[in-house]
Amino acid sequence: MAFRVEARDPCGARAGLLETPRGPLPTPVFMPVATQASVKALDADDLRRLSARAILANSYHLYLRPGVETIKEAGGLHRFMDYDGFILTDSGGFQVLSLSDLREVDDEGVTFRSHLDGSEHRLTPESVIGVQAALGSDGWTTLDECPPYPCAEPAARQALERTMRWLDRSVPVVEAARAAGARSLFFPLLQGGLHPGLRRRSAEHHNACPADGIAIGGFMVGEDKATTWRELAATTALLREDRPRYLMGVGTPRDLWDAAACGADMMDCVYPTRVARSGSVMTRGGRFTVTNGRYRRDFKPLDPECSCFVCARYSRAYLGHLLRCEELAVYRLLSYHNLHFMADVAAVVRAAIVAGRFPAARAEFLARYGDGP
Amino acid sequence: MAFRVEARDPCGARAGLLETPRGPLPTPVFMPVATQASVKALDADDLRRLSARAILANSYHLYLRPGVETIKEAGGLHRFMDYDGFILTDSGGFQVLSLSDLREVDDEGVTFRSHLDGSEHRLTPESVIGVQAALGSDGWTTLDECPPYPCAEPAARQALERTMRWLDRSVPVVEAARAAGARSLFFPLLQGGLHPGLRRRSAEHHNACPADGIAIGGFMVGEDKATTWRELAATTALLREDRPRYLMGVGTPRDLWDAAACGADMMDCVYPTRVARSGSVMTRGGRFTVTNGRYRRDFKPLDPECSCFVCARYSRAYLGHLLRCEELAVYRLLSYHNLHFMADVAAVVRAAIVAGRFPAARAEFLARYGDGP
Repeated sequence: MAFRVEARDPCGARAGLLETPRGPLPTPVFMPVATQASVKALDADDLRRLSARAILANSYHLYLRPGVETIKEAGGLHRFMDYDGFILTDSGGFQVLSLSDLREVDDEGVTFRSHLDGSEHRLTPESVIGVQAALGSDGWTTLDECPPYPCAEPAARQALERTMRWLDRSVPVVEAARAAGARSLFFPLLQGGLHPGLRRRSAEHHNACPADGIAIGGFMVGEDKATTWRELAATTALLREDRPRYLMGVGTPRDLWDAAACGADMMDCVYPTRVARSGSVMTRGGRFTVTNGRYRRDFKPLDPECSCFVCARYSRAYLGHLLRCEELAVYRLLSYHNLHFMADVAAVVRAAIVAGRFPAARAEFLARYGDGP
Repeated sequence: MAFRVEARDPCGARAGLLETPRGPLPTPVFMPVATQASVKALDADDLRRLSARAILANSYHLYLRPGVETIKEAGGLHRFMDYDGFILTDSGGFQVLSLSDLREVDDEGVTFRSHLDGSEHRLTPESVIGVQAALGSDGWTTLDECPPYPCAEPAARQALERTMRWLDRSVPVVEAARAAGARSLFFPLLQGGLHPGLRRRSAEHHNACPADGIAIGGFMVGEDKATTWRELAATTALLREDRPRYLMGVGTPRDLWDAAACGADMMDCVYPTRVARSGSVMTRGGRFTVTNGRYRRDFKPLDPECSCFVCARYSRAYLGHLLRCEELAVYRLLSYHNLHFMADVAAVVRAAIVAGRFPAARAEFLARYGDGP
């Protein structure tokens, strides 16, 4: 197996190591989001400086723009964006349902109109793997039908059945790509986690499939956080231990601890960069908004305990000034800091698991971080 | 003197070296614009990587936001923005007249309302030097009254008389600041260049003033380029040879050659970064718009002859994709490239003067660069 669990906390948290085509990836890991082949406001040089070894890109967006042929001709997504780390691609199922117009889901796939130009497209479980293979990403997910939240059991069951059938149909395409030389890891999507009745069926099906990891979808769709963690823990309890669990769309610094406690190994979220662009800064001592008047003459770094270049160089007063002026540079600087912070939190989480003191370390972190997300 | 002319072309172009409080500055030099203490989309680290040894900041903007006290408390503008090169500050006279509401100019100064919050302010020739001294910039300009264009001779004469009186009133404040330890260079503003009748009077007055350099204003205010260069050459012909001439608000790659030919030594303009943000890219072979359809699958760098990190790393196809997606990273990358190009052009101009082949080098450059600005 490409994944090795190196340490386990009794609560369920795991420290692992995933062997990827781009080198070893220690987990838990937080993956910055590069939906359109760019982590918002940063360039690949920044990612290298951040030591960001894994990012998430989005098949749906890249399929529509710039298009698969362009990226193929560029020599793949890595060369297109000049990034040499691990790129996991979201299948785009979620985006088809949330962004596109006039979508129609049938047993064979999804027909939809582009949110960019209204052009009609069709994605099938098979073609979605083909898109990811053409992009040359390192981790492939499967097309799924993500039911709305809340969703009654019968509708959720129907979506789950379809998602499982789509998973089965993806497998031969993955195997063919591998026979043709692809080394990418297969992370088929798991649904149904919020419905206790469907959870076991979904997990059993997934456990029996050939896969390198599990992309856990269907959380963070509107339910409250207590529900998320309770249901996630119940879900991971049913999953094989030897596969890395990628929890999609999570999260905040607090979420990293909670997701890890539920046995999640990989997470991604636009949260750190999105809030950065409105001036929200994460520090060991909690979150603050850098444009708050109290920082106008505060010449300390964003986080005095942070080792990132932004904190080495710029003050709260300067960064607040730039944001008030809407100077473009500030979006990059705050995004960089927040992603550095998230990587730092993931490293602290991992070290705590390895040291056998996860609950204590979590309590210490949260005591200082406070009530924020 | 702080300025030494190292080589001269018969056409009037000069290669010089200006000793500044931040080290020697070879001229001709193009200075990126950091109006609000930030070169748009770049950070100070980028400026260092660009070897940008001189930038322009704006007293008017910084006086209003974040305010002089904040920057003073930060330890000066250099520490505020973490830049250790030469910072010249525009007095803000031009901005008062062009941006603020309800301005009133009298013999003693200018009263205006902030374009940000409507608050009332007054700037005098003396206070403008005080602002720049408090900011801690390395080059100080004087408050001027920039007449509109076109402007009849009587009105231009009145503005000029006032500008000259304001210059005279600035001198004691500069001398007091120097007595108190300031090492900043004094670049009082010259006006009246577009009026042959006023030009001599203005130049003679300026030549007789104690100054380290000359900030030439009143060009690029709406006149056509042929007029600019004809009148500029006539103006510099009247100026002392031993002072560097900073031509404000210029320009484009073509302008660098033309301004240098007229004896200008320092230039600044938002042009390279402004056009970058709409996708306009400068190369040795001319300007192009990176979002043009023909570059969709063009995997060459922006300029195959460029040594900047953007060209080393990213393709036209990728950068065009980012701009189409309005990904924030692209504004920085294109701005960086264009500023790198401008620095490169300035270096080529200087080398041509030193080598005694300015006219030939200019013709070669323009033959390849083409008709664009």
